[in-house]
Amino acid sequence: MSGLPAGSPGPHVFVESLEHLQVVDGDLSHLAKSLRMRDGDPLTVSDGEGRWCHAEFASTGVLAATSEIFIVPEPERATTVAFSLTKQSKPEWVIQKLTELGVSNIVALTSERTIVRWDGDKVEKAMQRWERIVVEAAMQSHRVRLPNLDGIVPSTDWLSRPEVAIAHFGGDPVGQQHFSIAIGPEGGWSPNEVSVAMRTVTLGETVLRAETAAVAAGVLLTRKNL
Amino acid sequence: MSGLPAGSPGPHVFVESLEHLQVVDGDLSHLAKSLRMRDGDPLTVSDGEGRWCHAEFASTGVLAATSEIFIVPEPERATTVAFSLTKQSKPEWVIQKLTELGVSNIVALTSERTIVRWDGDKVEKAMQRWERIVVEAAMQSHRVRLPNLDGIVPSTDWLSRPEVAIAHFGGDPVGQQHFSIAIGPEGGWSPNEVSVAMRTVTLGETVLRAETAAVAAGVLLTRKNL
Repeated sequence: MSGLPAGSPGPHVFVESLEHLQVVDGDLSHLAKSLRMRDGDPLTVSDGEGRWCHAEFASTGVLAATSEIFIVPEPERATTVAFSLTKQSKPEWVIQKLTELGVSNIVALTSERTIVRWDGDKVEKAMQRWERIVVEAAMQSHRVRLPNLDGIVPSTDWLSRPEVAIAHFGGDPVGQQHFSIAIGPEGGWSPNEVSVAMRTVTLGETVLRAETAAVAAGVLLTRKNL
Repeated sequence: MSGLPAGSPGPHVFVESLEHLQVVDGDLSHLAKSLRMRDGDPLTVSDGEGRWCHAEFASTGVLAATSEIFIVPEPERATTVAFSLTKQSKPEWVIQKLTELGVSNIVALTSERTIVRWDGDKVEKAMQRWERIVVEAAMQSHRVRLPNLDGIVPSTDWLSRPEVAIAHFGGDPVGQQHFSIAIGPEGGWSPNEVSVAMRTVTLGETVLRAETAAVAAGVLLTRKNL
């Protein structure tokens, strides 16, 4: 199974440490109630930092490991998708899909054409909600490394980084040299944002909604060279 | 602009015939009210069969062409994504995204693990709703060819076709030789469905929700070789 828990029997759950397989309450109730697991049912457990093992479910929340601990090395190229928040954008959905796809870093940007204001309390609440979406999607997709979630970053700070390619009409096809793509809002990047970017990629000939573009970038970065 | 309306100023709309640019009522009200277009504003118009032109908006619904008619040849390889309907599946969402991505053929399957029954009246209503989603997504993405929407097809009829590859753990990476991918339900294909399929592809190392897998297949078929 290529050393990964995908394909192993049972669901996948994260714990603080593989030395002591203690499942947090929310996840325990998900396993017991939604998935109807019973004592002894198989599952896989990861610390979210590349280590995982097989285990048996226990309704007490303290699982018993049934294998050695496997260590998955860090990917050679960490992949990053940064996406612009807009009024119409669906950040929850984008974050869920990018996590499922295995993107290493997910970044929420405020672009110059982002109308909605993001400040203090609102940002904190959104980040908490998004962190939970990341964990749930990582469980669902059997990841062994949780992605980093960064937010909320002003676009021009981000776009001027030398490794970042902005998705923009007329750019280069996504290739081996790209590992970090930034997606603009529905109205596109401002001329100022375009001018600070060092690289530009195209995501194809049809016009994609912002959230579709973010997912397409995630698919190409994680799967184009399979 | 590579002979395509993407990148041209203004929205994109479909008409029955480019000889007479008559916009249907629903689209006219979308252009006038949601997009606040005024007489003389630029847009692009297509017949959905590969022909398109520039035009000027008119609140009467009869537009004036402002360019010659451009003809976009059929793609060398028509791409197909077939997806399984399930209780949890989000067919509307999958159909919208596959249309945006430019997939040529979209097929809704009932797989052996589809629990919900699809029959007569329900199928007809769903197909009408889906056809409308196709048109709206094609407008949004500035397509010049509307995709074919097929449904609802029993999986085993579809999966036994020689050109169809099923997405299944341990398959080949998606490559030049693939142009038709079928996505199973959340519970996966049945052993019988796997046995009738002639080709198998993998969509990567993480476990994808059914709807994410359908979109990933659409991205790889339409963009992997860009």
